[in-house]
Amino acid sequence: MRKYLTLAVALLMAGSSVAQDDIKLPAPNKDVKMTLMDALQQRTSVREYSDKAVDDATLSQVLWAACGINRPESKKITAASAINAQDILVYVVRAEGAWLFMPETNVLHKVCDKDLRDDVAGFQKFAATAPVSLVLVSDKAKFGNRSRGSDQLAAMDSGYVSENIYLVCTALGLGTVARATMNHEVLSRELGLTDQQVPLLNHPIGWLK
Amino acid sequence: MRKYLTLAVALLMAGSSVAQDDIKLPAPNKDVKMTLMDALQQRTSVREYSDKAVDDATLSQVLWAACGINRPESKKITAASAINAQDILVYVVRAEGAWLFMPETNVLHKVCDKDLRDDVAGFQKFAATAPVSLVLVSDKAKFGNRSRGSDQLAAMDSGYVSENIYLVCTALGLGTVARATMNHEVLSRELGLTDQQVPLLNHPIGWLK
Repeated sequence: MRKYLTLAVALLMAGSSVAQDDIKLPAPNKDVKMTLMDALQQRTSVREYSDKAVDDATLSQVLWAACGINRPESKKITAASAINAQDILVYVVRAEGAWLFMPETNVLHKVCDKDLRDDVAGFQKFAATAPVSLVLVSDKAKFGNRSRGSDQLAAMDSGYVSENIYLVCTALGLGTVARATMNHEVLSRELGLTDQQVPLLNHPIGWLK
Repeated sequence: MRKYLTLAVALLMAGSSVAQDDIKLPAPNKDVKMTLMDALQQRTSVREYSDKAVDDATLSQVLWAACGINRPESKKITAASAINAQDILVYVVRAEGAWLFMPETNVLHKVCDKDLRDDVAGFQKFAATAPVSLVLVSDKAKFGNRSRGSDQLAAMDSGYVSENIYLVCTALGLGTVARATMNHEVLSRELGLTDQQVPLLNHPIGWLK
């Protein structure tokens, strides 16, 4: 009897939208006072972070601004995207593991149990001191057969998402910097990326010291 | 006597910061109420424009947001820029000609007397109906000897500037769309670009219909 009960629970969990180890983020609070012009005026690169955790409510705001859905009816997103490919995947890297951000459900889907922050940092050790890093990966399969120019479009699209991250961090009192340095090989393996999914940029993020 | 006076005036003009046909833009008005989050919520691509001109005061706001200087002491800019290369040049294309935006002086430096809007539009005719287009050019010479990866960095940098243009247009009630389509050959010639200066994106801009 107990065996069947366990099986039933497992089946129920598999059918729910949030699997074990996944995190349903709170809805992003968009009531943030800073004007666009002030965010542009104050945008800067920050390489020193407090070790205070970045809570999930704040992370939800950052991820929505980065490339969240701003038009639910068409599933279009805050960041511009070449031919609306929406090729940029955002991975969240923290001490407790790594997660893929799922914009439609606002869920973090766990992909790794390890602390990959050193692999995000590479030779720039300061980056590993941030409590959270975002890794921007282009899924080039989203460009379909358009192989010509897809490297360029992917890079542009990472820039769109990255600028949004800079601006929302500014508005929320967080510091960040965009970096192309990282251990691509380890991250590709540990995040479970396909051959077509390429890490392009990362953003260590933390509260200002 | 008259000859010397003319010469003196010509010399004075040559020595001033604004040459003939150049336009000194008004200082950008940063007192724009829209919050960053509202701009992100409302960001979209717009392909229909009123034929009402975009005045220089508005253009000054758009150009400052795109990649204007936000830290005069270090001459750093609103848009993130890989290795702070600041490689993205912004050209303004209108019926009366084309100008290079000079962020340090807020001057439009005239480079062409022709209406290049059809060359910006290419085969997408709607784009030529916008009263002004911005052409984003990467000056790859700014990356120095770092030839490896400079195509990728240039594309990212164009994405940074382009996202800012989208957001400020949203905040100002303007419509725009980023496009990679354009007549690169004609634009490179007419704008007087070097071999290292590559048009990557353009933004037709106009008031909403």
